[in-house]
Formats: sequence, C-alpha cells, structure tokens
Amino acid sequence: MSQRRGLLIILSSPSGAGKSTLTRRLRDWDPTIRFSVSATTRDPRPGEVDGQDYHFLTEEKFKRDVADGEMLEHAHVFGNFYGSPKGPVQAAIDNGQDVLFDIDWQGAEQIRNSALAAHTLSIFILPPSIKELHRRLVTRDQDSAEVIAKRMQKSWDEISHWGSYDYVLINDDLDNTAQDLKTIVQATRLRRLQQPALVEHVRNLQSEFEDIS
Amino acid sequence: MSQRRGLLIILSSPSGAGKSTLTRRLRDWDPTIRFSVSATTRDPRPGEVDGQDYHFLTEEKFKRDVADGEMLEHAHVFGNFYGSPKGPVQAAIDNGQDVLFDIDWQGAEQIRNSALAAHTLSIFILPPSIKELHRRLVTRDQDSAEVIAKRMQKSWDEISHWGSYDYVLINDDLDNTAQDLKTIVQATRLRRLQQPALVEHVRNLQSEFEDIS
Repeated sequence: MSQRRGLLIILSSPSGAGKSTLTRRLRDWDPTIRFSVSATTRDPRPGEVDGQDYHFLTEEKFKRDVADGEMLEHAHVFGNFYGSPKGPVQAAIDNGQDVLFDIDWQGAEQIRNSALAAHTLSIFILPPSIKELHRRLVTRDQDSAEVIAKRMQKSWDEISHWGSYDYVLINDDLDNTAQDLKTIVQATRLRRLQQPALVEHVRNLQSEFEDIS
Repeated sequence: MSQRRGLLIILSSPSGAGKSTLTRRLRDWDPTIRFSVSATTRDPRPGEVDGQDYHFLTEEKFKRDVADGEMLEHAHVFGNFYGSPKGPVQAAIDNGQDVLFDIDWQGAEQIRNSALAAHTLSIFILPPSIKELHRRLVTRDQDSAEVIAKRMQKSWDEISHWGSYDYVLINDDLDNTAQDLKTIVQATRLRRLQQPALVEHVRNLQSEFEDIS
C-alpha cells in the first residue's frame, strides 16, 4: 500500500457554474488526479474507446455488478444505465491516487453511503447568480423557452442539495475558486484516514517506548 | 454575524513534540487567532492577570458554570479545577475568529462532544521518535529517573489517543509541519459549516430562480 490513500473527490454543480474549467485547473495543478471512467449500457458512439470514454457493459453485466456491490453509484437515464465501478477506484486510492467524480447530487449521495465513504471529499460549486446561469443556457443553445425552463429547473434541483457537501464554493472569481479547491484537496490529503502510514509510525513509537520503559 | 464562523482549533501532543513552536508559527501567520483563556480555581500566582492568564473563579462559581453547561471541557488536577469557558469562545467564533486550544486528549474529547462540536478542528502532533522525546525530558530537567519514567508514561498515554483526531502530523520537519498546519486551517475555514453567508447566498439564488420561472 502507498504512503497515502487517495481521495474520492466529488465535484457537483449546476451546469454553467464553471465546474469543467475548475476540473481542468485541478488536473493542471496535479496531473496524477484521475477521472473516474463511468460504466454504461448504452451503445458506444463513433470514436468512443471502451475503458477510456466509458466501460461499455451489457445490461445483464451491469445489473450483476450493481447486485454484487461493484458500483459505487448508478442511475437510470433515458433507458440506459450509468454508474461508477468500484474496482478501478479502489485500486487507484490504494495506490495513493485521487479520483475525481463529476457527478450530480444523487451520485454523490450514493458514494457518501458506499464502502468508500470515509475517503470521500465532496465539493459543491455555486454560481454567483442565477442570471448568469440563465444567460449561458440562452446563449449556447438554440433551444425553446420550454427546454430552457426545464434546464433551469434541473439546475435549481441540483443547487437545492448544496447542504450535503463538505465544502461549498461560490465561483465568483475563477482564480480564487481554483486556489481554494487546491487548498482543500491539499489539506484533505493530510486527513488521518488518508494516511495509513501513521499506524506503522505509532507502532514504532510504541516499540521504542516499551524498550525505554 | 461575521461572514465566516471561527474554528475551535484543538492542538494536542505529548510534551516535547514541538507543539509550542507550531502554535507560535500559526499565530505569526495569522495574529487574529486567539488563545482560549482557561478558568481555574487555583490562586493567582504573582504577576498573573485575571482574564488574561486565567479566569480565576471560586470553586462554587466553577461548579455552577459546569452544571450550567458553561464549560466546554474541564478537569480536576492536583485539587484544583481547570476548564474552558464557552462564552468567550462562542463570541469569538460568531465574530469570525478562530480560537486555539492547547489541551490534552481528555479535553479534546469533551469539546468534540460539546455544543460547539461542529466547529472544531482537531490536530494531533506526533514526534518522529520516542528517543527524541526522552532526550528532551532528560536534558531539560534535573528530575529523577522515576519522575522521567512517569512523564514518559504520560506522553505515551497521550499518544495512544492519536486516532480520535481529524489530522495527525508527524513533526519530523518543523517548516513542513507548520506549512501543513497552515494549509489545514485555511481549508477548514472554507468548510460549509464555517460559512454562514452561504445560506443567504442560496436564498438569493432561489429568489432569482423564482423571478425567472
């Protein structure tokens, strides 16, 4: 086992709050942070690589993995299953690597209740205003007012779960938020539960103490 | 109420692990961090100032405060009571100021179970080796082998509670440890529960959302 145990870093936010940029900044700062590759039962699209873009599974295999506790979280969306396989995450954190999860509040909730709960760090990114979120949706899409209203509702549903996260950052200044994110990850890596080597260190102190006494 | 809620920073360690130096470094970095002034029933020594060195209380008043839940933690040592009054700590954290507690594992345990539990950050400092602790005890004191053995036993008792702390740092390099301590405090100040202004921010987002919908 590595000197330190990796973290499951959960990043949630409504779409348009700057999460993708912050994720990129975090990876630029430390390229050893891995993305969790989701499993899905939908068909691969042209160019998608199995094990890289997604783990493409049959519905039978997916359901068996869920039953066996091999999915940290999963959801059923538009007739397809999506989930986060536990195996690669467990291997990464045992190897001292952090794994980043870009998931919504429901996935976050499931991971917080999973076998790896003790090693999670959950962060929610809030937009400075709803106006800005709305503007981005209106600008980037040619969608009908109805579709936009639905997306705004979805954003609000996501925001309403901010109170379950360890940290909540208001992204009103990208540089500040990226710096805060980095500080939070740096500190959380030092958390007692992320430092399995402490057990060995205390065992050594105990031997020394017994030798002296 | 301040923008942020202050932390109760609990620092514990066996004597000789470098805690005093680290405490000084933390205060040099941010002089707004306050020390918790203990209450005691022992008599003031020459030069000690009430409310600065200690809050000097009668035993009757001390016991009443304990009964009223006005002591975050307390202990009975060599016939005198010692404790941490809640009032000044509550006032400081409401004002956005962190309060540092230099207390042993029993005090830490009591604060973790107090009304201010949600705002604590507990850090344990481990020595790199027992040999070094022992050397310091032998060097600094003219004490008998028996007294030194007792102190070593006390150190070991303290160390044996390392597993109840949020963070445990091995102080093998003072600069590194001081830097880690600073990072941990910086990050923990960002914790959701330390940021009461978030509630107001989300309320504003909700109004905006309702206006748009």
